[in-house]
Amino acid sequence: MSKSDFGLIGLAVMGQNLVLNVESRGFQVSVYNRTTSVTDQFIAANPDKNLVGAQSLEEFVQSLATPRKIQIMVKAGGPVDAVIESLIPLLDQDDIIIDGGNTLYTDTERREKYLSEKGFRFIGAGVSGGEEGALKGPSIMPGGPASTWAIMQPIFESISAKVDGVPCVTHIGEGGAGHFVKMVHNGIEYGDMQLICEAYNIFKAAGFSNEEQAAIFADWNAGDLESYLIEITANIFKQKDAETGKDIVDLIVDKAGQKGTGRWTVMGSVEQAVPFSTIAGSVEARILSSMRDQRKLASGILQGPDNWNFDLGSLSKEELVKKVRNALYSSKIVSYAQGLDLIAKVGKEKNWGLNLGAIARIWRGGCIIRARFLNHITEAYETDANLTNLMLAPFFTKVLNSGQQDWREVVALAATNGIPVPSFGGSLSYYDAYRAERVPANLLQAQRDFFGAHTYERIDKPEGEFFHTEDWPELID
Amino acid sequence: MSKSDFGLIGLAVMGQNLVLNVESRGFQVSVYNRTTSVTDQFIAANPDKNLVGAQSLEEFVQSLATPRKIQIMVKAGGPVDAVIESLIPLLDQDDIIIDGGNTLYTDTERREKYLSEKGFRFIGAGVSGGEEGALKGPSIMPGGPASTWAIMQPIFESISAKVDGVPCVTHIGEGGAGHFVKMVHNGIEYGDMQLICEAYNIFKAAGFSNEEQAAIFADWNAGDLESYLIEITANIFKQKDAETGKDIVDLIVDKAGQKGTGRWTVMGSVEQAVPFSTIAGSVEARILSSMRDQRKLASGILQGPDNWNFDLGSLSKEELVKKVRNALYSSKIVSYAQGLDLIAKVGKEKNWGLNLGAIARIWRGGCIIRARFLNHITEAYETDANLTNLMLAPFFTKVLNSGQQDWREVVALAATNGIPVPSFGGSLSYYDAYRAERVPANLLQAQRDFFGAHTYERIDKPEGEFFHTEDWPELID
Repeated sequence: MSKSDFGLIGLAVMGQNLVLNVESRGFQVSVYNRTTSVTDQFIAANPDKNLVGAQSLEEFVQSLATPRKIQIMVKAGGPVDAVIESLIPLLDQDDIIIDGGNTLYTDTERREKYLSEKGFRFIGAGVSGGEEGALKGPSIMPGGPASTWAIMQPIFESISAKVDGVPCVTHIGEGGAGHFVKMVHNGIEYGDMQLICEAYNIFKAAGFSNEEQAAIFADWNAGDLESYLIEITANIFKQKDAETGKDIVDLIVDKAGQKGTGRWTVMGSVEQAVPFSTIAGSVEARILSSMRDQRKLASGILQGPDNWNFDLGSLSKEELVKKVRNALYSSKIVSYAQGLDLIAKVGKEKNWGLNLGAIARIWRGGCIIRARFLNHITEAYETDANLTNLMLAPFFTKVLNSGQQDWREVVALAATNGIPVPSFGGSLSYYDAYRAERVPANLLQAQRDFFGAHTYERIDKPEGEFFHTEDWPELID
Repeated sequence: MSKSDFGLIGLAVMGQNLVLNVESRGFQVSVYNRTTSVTDQFIAANPDKNLVGAQSLEEFVQSLATPRKIQIMVKAGGPVDAVIESLIPLLDQDDIIIDGGNTLYTDTERREKYLSEKGFRFIGAGVSGGEEGALKGPSIMPGGPASTWAIMQPIFESISAKVDGVPCVTHIGEGGAGHFVKMVHNGIEYGDMQLICEAYNIFKAAGFSNEEQAAIFADWNAGDLESYLIEITANIFKQKDAETGKDIVDLIVDKAGQKGTGRWTVMGSVEQAVPFSTIAGSVEARILSSMRDQRKLASGILQGPDNWNFDLGSLSKEELVKKVRNALYSSKIVSYAQGLDLIAKVGKEKNWGLNLGAIARIWRGGCIIRARFLNHITEAYETDANLTNLMLAPFFTKVLNSGQQDWREVVALAATNGIPVPSFGGSLSYYDAYRAERVPANLLQAQRDFFGAHTYERIDKPEGEFFHTEDWPELID
């Protein structure tokens, strides 16, 4: 029997679909799953495919051509280490292990060091696109040595999504760069989803039907906001429940789950001192949604306008839709500006040599955040690879400048009407602070100098000279 | 020569002032500083005090009565480990080391384990109050074994601030509890300072003079908002620059520094999935303030209202002051609710047996966040030790319900007028989500189920049953 070109460990849905994707591009693929009945069922369900179902890890490794290319698709954390440990005694020098899970990038860096010291090669690759993407073409964000990327490139490029013929995969950078960029991608995905939910909350409160909302999102998807998440949102509003015939969206409990990558992104931003408000708003919204019992209790105690019922007043529905669209679009730009800022900062610190334009390019297809919008980001970084902030690229400046008035009105309207808009509002505060020639931190520095002698700079003295007021009044008694 | 009751290593200002405080309560104190000239100067400057200046660590240790009580006041991180390592060979069993710096609580837990395995005792104690507090009476948050606390209690109680005769120190809990609570204290301090800055930004934009603002904050300090930070703010607005005679606040550069504890608090909240918007807003504001060059650049590019110049319209100055006061007070309650939520959650997880009422009680004096307000928090937890959320305590519910309308108007006004209010706004979004019987996370769960088969619960089925829609339309092509 001929040796396989590629091997995959972990046959959950994502793993199975990736295998079928690789096989469909003309490669022979070996598979292994700890519970071998899953392997048997998968092979039986795909009788005409060029697959090798291994009953043991030894058999799996032996079935692969060298240097072996073994992708692990198991739960991030301990399970990845366990699989790697069991593989090590079976591998030859220069064999390649690929971790395709949602792994924390620092774990990837630790594993790459560990494995390279033993003479093996390791790629930490973020894979986005959900089940469908895995099957038909995901966006892939591989990190690790360029020489290893060169070996994996043919397979990765053939299985990835294509946009205008360009594969949605590129060598992100050394070490943990791939998983780091995937983490921020997921944080941005959190932000995108939350912005849509805030728009929904406002529309729902204003009395729009699900049908009207399906039409709004479909309309937005025909324009500059075209994106996978806007598109599926339009479809969600049209979806009926098979059991009751009712709109499914109205039957779903308002408790959001989260698996960690959004939280990691916020923690990474805070640690790096990079602004984070849009994605942080989305993470806090998910946390609060999960506190459903407390919300029910508090709803009878804490007063304010009913957040599902507000009066449009003199505003027409069409005007509201336009304003909310501009609030969403502007907040989305802020969210990407913050995420790219984080990527740029960590990339510089780690010397990853990241290409932000190329990263935006591979997000255009396959992945959950795929959007027309990303073309403009790619263009912005192609025009200026050292762009200070995405908002300052002419295309995005124009969108923000023309949308900012509507955005303000939406945030004001939400505050007035009791509708939580952590991401619309947090993004606007970021926008207004970022464009503020003066912020009130002079008072804060005075406070810090008052109680802690932390010193301050003066506007009438050179930068870098620090002063302390000796004669603040004494107040503690 | 008699042996000293207490020893302190690290004679920076905080350390010196703590020594003078301990000595003033009738204790003999030994001091050591790596640069011995600092020790000599300190001893020379305090000729009549009962102090022992040691030239070497050996001499320092030998000068102390056993069990020795040695407080370290050096920079958090590596320096603390270095001092501990150099002390170990010199100490006897059961000697006590106290780390009084702003140490990350996980470091404290590591050190306590390490030292207790060697037979030494360790206390991680947060100390708040700045220079003046250290000298005249700080708030102290010691963690570690109760038996060690019992030995330290007489000294800690005598040097701490007192409110109504009650010392501002208590045994917080085992392990890293003291430094953890101090970290959250500092996060809350960040929030308090930011809320004052947002009020200042609005007043300044509305054309209030520094003199008017001094009067406003002095007036607030005479009422429910009485607190150290409000009080010093009133004084800051009155302070003249010694050199130019101008108001000092106008001469200070609007770039805020930060040392880490605020960022740690946000990271801890995100990690624990506890809401965090008020303190997060304060951290992001400091980050943005420090990006002064980018702000100057962006101010000429990104459009919106001038954030230092808005028209009050039909609103009187008095009305604005009242509204802003209610926005600040409400946001402050949210900030403490979030911080106490974090303390409660981590305390439960760690089995620290925390007493939230006692924690609020020791914050009433000595520390930077000391405030009349904290009496009500203590009362709330004395009435109900398992209070679900501070906002649901009757006193705070009443404040929020009577202030929420003004708070909304301030957030709306700020959004409309281009004034960044990350903490006023983030707090309001939290308030409105917390009291929302329904949030839009049902749509988010539909999205997650659509692209990732993450499943959802249904409002018409029992909690804990999860469903997946099999026939979402396929969209990736």
